[in-house]
Amino acid sequence: MSDGVPRVSHIPMADRPNDTGNCGIVEPRYYTFGERDDDPGVHLDCGQELRPVRLCYETYGTLNRDRSNAILLLHAFSGDAHAAGYHHPEDKGPGWWDMMVGPGKAFDTDRYYVICSNVIGGCSGSTGPGSVNPTTGRRYGLDFPVITIADMVRAQVRLIDYLGIDRLLAVAGGSMGGMQALEWASSFPERISGSICLATTARLSAQGIAFDAVGRNAIMSDPRWNNGDYYDSEPPARGLAIARMIGHITYLSDESMRLKFGRRLQERASAELDLFEQFEVESYLEHKGGTFVDRFDANSYIYLSKAIDYFDLVESKGSLDAAFVDSSCKFLVLSFTSDWLYPAYHSKEIVRALMRLGKDVSYTEISSPYGHDAFLLESERQAPLVSAFLNTLMREREADA
Amino acid sequence: MSDGVPRVSHIPMADRPNDTGNCGIVEPRYYTFGERDDDPGVHLDCGQELRPVRLCYETYGTLNRDRSNAILLLHAFSGDAHAAGYHHPEDKGPGWWDMMVGPGKAFDTDRYYVICSNVIGGCSGSTGPGSVNPTTGRRYGLDFPVITIADMVRAQVRLIDYLGIDRLLAVAGGSMGGMQALEWASSFPERISGSICLATTARLSAQGIAFDAVGRNAIMSDPRWNNGDYYDSEPPARGLAIARMIGHITYLSDESMRLKFGRRLQERASAELDLFEQFEVESYLEHKGGTFVDRFDANSYIYLSKAIDYFDLVESKGSLDAAFVDSSCKFLVLSFTSDWLYPAYHSKEIVRALMRLGKDVSYTEISSPYGHDAFLLESERQAPLVSAFLNTLMREREADA
Repeated sequence: MSDGVPRVSHIPMADRPNDTGNCGIVEPRYYTFGERDDDPGVHLDCGQELRPVRLCYETYGTLNRDRSNAILLLHAFSGDAHAAGYHHPEDKGPGWWDMMVGPGKAFDTDRYYVICSNVIGGCSGSTGPGSVNPTTGRRYGLDFPVITIADMVRAQVRLIDYLGIDRLLAVAGGSMGGMQALEWASSFPERISGSICLATTARLSAQGIAFDAVGRNAIMSDPRWNNGDYYDSEPPARGLAIARMIGHITYLSDESMRLKFGRRLQERASAELDLFEQFEVESYLEHKGGTFVDRFDANSYIYLSKAIDYFDLVESKGSLDAAFVDSSCKFLVLSFTSDWLYPAYHSKEIVRALMRLGKDVSYTEISSPYGHDAFLLESERQAPLVSAFLNTLMREREADA
Repeated sequence: MSDGVPRVSHIPMADRPNDTGNCGIVEPRYYTFGERDDDPGVHLDCGQELRPVRLCYETYGTLNRDRSNAILLLHAFSGDAHAAGYHHPEDKGPGWWDMMVGPGKAFDTDRYYVICSNVIGGCSGSTGPGSVNPTTGRRYGLDFPVITIADMVRAQVRLIDYLGIDRLLAVAGGSMGGMQALEWASSFPERISGSICLATTARLSAQGIAFDAVGRNAIMSDPRWNNGDYYDSEPPARGLAIARMIGHITYLSDESMRLKFGRRLQERASAELDLFEQFEVESYLEHKGGTFVDRFDANSYIYLSKAIDYFDLVESKGSLDAAFVDSSCKFLVLSFTSDWLYPAYHSKEIVRALMRLGKDVSYTEISSPYGHDAFLLESERQAPLVSAFLNTLMREREADA
């Protein structure tokens, strides 16, 4: 490409045992903007301008000649740019959506150019509260501005501009990623042909806000949080672990937890009742909370959960009809039966608005025991629907060309 | 009564405005046993003997001549002996089940003698981890033995013995109280004529255990918890408040939170986005968490939630059929449609076992938006079912006499 952007960032790793059709070894890339006075940063909903802005991103597959096969994946709350493949041959597991992204998979990297970037406010390579504030030379901490889902999308638009893509074939994401997919369709209708919105909502429920609030409270109650200023000392690991444990329960379901753990106890040291004896589900959650703190920043937890809570297309656009009246893309909306954090009725609210507007929307409620996490785990029914939706979009693009 | 136990502990307060038919001013009473060598304490499931044991209890109504009209109410996790009426004329509100207990109410104090005692392990007048350990002269803290639902019931049996009641007309409770009602029916079948089991389960789900575990983690992560030894210093108020906030969400429902709070924000100081701005549901939860710490002991939170987690009639008795095979009482089992913490299928599991055994059981799933808390809030449909059930029991008692 003339702009120096490489079209392929992966090296096939076909001989990896028991994992055919993956994206091989991928390398994170970085795009930074807003460093020079004539290069704007992101004008945020809060009124501030964030600059400079660095975005960490990965790409899989090859951008075609007319740049019509690009898909932007939008990650969920604790996700990152590493959607597929491996960073190192010895990685324990692949990227977070490897089940869906790769050669021959739903997001078929033999056919599409797939991009995924870490959101602003995050802590996995993009500018967030753990980044250095250029005006102070110290980490932002709570000086980082409040960001919204729309702000995340504004930064993504800059990346797509940089990559030389006028119109994405599709944007796709679940949960917080689905919020971004909705925001793209509403605010940048001319930039996408399709929007894939999984396990998401146009506005989080009071119950969802409540869980987020308790998580933030747990972090802020940890003395090590120190009002967000902990980057030169020990991080608030206990508070963050508790927040993650709460979140994790809401991502699963009553059924999936019963199937996975039931009421099994960890192996007993003695036959006596013990206040500290753990059921398997307890030690699983503690383990999940404990490993999370190694990869996630507590301040990003606060900022990103607040962005999720604030997201409300009804409030920001006046109504769902107003939000989507200018959308010209096709929509694929999927919800999952056991998802109680983003229940199906939230998706149906979106679908009803789109149908009232005469938009092209497909909706399926997929039967799954996996709760909110289903969009990350359920490929058997999800993948064919996504694949067929993308195929239709691509054929129309090819017919237009 | 010849044993010196007063039959009435309440003074009518009929002139209290806007609250007719209440139990008036009630006084907590105390029964202590296991103080002398020849008076045993409670032999606990963990193998230890707890002694001395003090139980705080209240009574409403009058015990009849043949002592056949006594009902024992069994409180839930954060409940206490104060089920009805007022302690002081200026009390903000009445006891926790005042809607159901009083003259002319479901537990009709004109007709029945109603008893309610705080469980052992609690912190509202009965012996618990905040009590003084007689062997050390200091508060128990974590030296308090692990207690179970069956242990709570064993202590209640001693109270009923003391009150001179051979056979209770009924035991009744919701949630953890319902676990006790099941335990009474299973372990002391000859002591009750009826068991009223509301919004409960024979064994908590993995999801329920998970929420309890996170609550305990939040308490134990508070540096002030100090391994349970905080009675001479500041209590772990932040950790306990977070645990309560988690619990509170699980007691409500998606629907009730939407109806009560929706996505309304607290009044804004400015129009700007603010990381610390709160939705109404957030400040409600913080308020609930904050007031809870004034009345509840963090160690009791740990002990009682562990008792709930351990409760498993299938495991302790071999099967539900084995648990209830000797039960001779009638059962009333009620669940609530929006209760996702103790969902209806838990009640149905109990009901199916009782039906297999040919026991006399009535079951209704009551439609309610109030979630798990419905048994505390929903009197319109619950009260007539309870009233009719008690009426049948009382008529049979009278016919037997």
